[in-house]
Amino acid sequence: MFISVEGIDGCGKTTQIKLLAEYLSQLDVEFIIVREPGGTKAGEEIRDILLHKEYHLFSESELLLFMAARAQIVREVIRPELEKGKTVIADRFMDSSVAYQGVGRRLGREIVQAMNAFAVGGTVPDITFYIDVPTDVAISRMRKEKKNDKIEMENFDFFERVREGYEKLMVENRERFVRIDGKQSEEKVQTDIRKSLRVLFHKKNQNGR
Amino acid sequence: MFISVEGIDGCGKTTQIKLLAEYLSQLDVEFIIVREPGGTKAGEEIRDILLHKEYHLFSESELLLFMAARAQIVREVIRPELEKGKTVIADRFMDSSVAYQGVGRRLGREIVQAMNAFAVGGTVPDITFYIDVPTDVAISRMRKEKKNDKIEMENFDFFERVREGYEKLMVENRERFVRIDGKQSEEKVQTDIRKSLRVLFHKKNQNGR
Repeated sequence: MFISVEGIDGCGKTTQIKLLAEYLSQLDVEFIIVREPGGTKAGEEIRDILLHKEYHLFSESELLLFMAARAQIVREVIRPELEKGKTVIADRFMDSSVAYQGVGRRLGREIVQAMNAFAVGGTVPDITFYIDVPTDVAISRMRKEKKNDKIEMENFDFFERVREGYEKLMVENRERFVRIDGKQSEEKVQTDIRKSLRVLFHKKNQNGR
Repeated sequence: MFISVEGIDGCGKTTQIKLLAEYLSQLDVEFIIVREPGGTKAGEEIRDILLHKEYHLFSESELLLFMAARAQIVREVIRPELEKGKTVIADRFMDSSVAYQGVGRRLGREIVQAMNAFAVGGTVPDITFYIDVPTDVAISRMRKEKKNDKIEMENFDFFERVREGYEKLMVENRERFVRIDGKQSEEKVQTDIRKSLRVLFHKKNQNGR
């Protein structure tokens, strides 16, 4: 089973993945958590380039570097682990590129989706949890966590566009997207995630998988 | 003026670019020579990843890394130099990805072309010299240069596919592609290149550029 967790910064993804991992451990489900661009040797090098501010990367180069790391981790890690029967949880995956770079940074939704298809080569999540929070809630959470006010209003429009990107993805990928109301308490969000997951497990078992 | 030089390995590109550089120097034309993936700090790092055999890069990751380096060098170097009025000579550029990865490695011509369009964002060569040599000629030259027989017949089919890729590109891009018969002597090949270039210079001057 391949699970991805998506949402704008401040939506609570990381906490939810930690709680989900605890749940899978309780169920004796073997799993790994992946987070791009790391997870492979090449990906770690790519991450170094992405973090190097003096390289003055353009948005286009950034996106292509993320895609390169994705193409690598899919073939080197995700596919082999899935084939061994393991569950893979991705803390962001292909949909982030569409929402953030394609729509948020206006690089174009279609081309990012075409590149994603090339990079993942059919290895698409079985289920994608989209933790949806209003932009103002996300920004106020980020301000609290980072204990500063660097997240300014100019980010507001950007995150609104990213949310629109996720909305479009959800409409186009109803078979795998599950929207989770991220305004709820951490416990309630996790309950919703586990409930959806049980439904999917059940369906898969019925299909003999 | 943006010039790219293309062709299969062993076609004599490097020698011809050296001779072309001498010619432009004689004409007092200011120029730079670029060769991907290098030419920018990020590109040099990308080159290191590409050369690192232990990273076990998949063809898809390799292609995306080349594309990232391309997106960067176009915006960081090529465009600014062209805007300053300099001539840029690219030792391989976007067409190599189509011919080598798209057709040669069968990653798909259309998707590579779509990625190219994204990576270069309109910065397409004014003229592309395609130095065409039959595969057997190229292979025997490579054997001589490298003084070994590692270039085996399995490479033959690959280079034949790459040539087919270049042929298709030529048909689709007649306005910028100039085929040069690479079987000729080095001097004759250079004469042909300079002749085409003079025609283009003349046309550009007539158009007031």
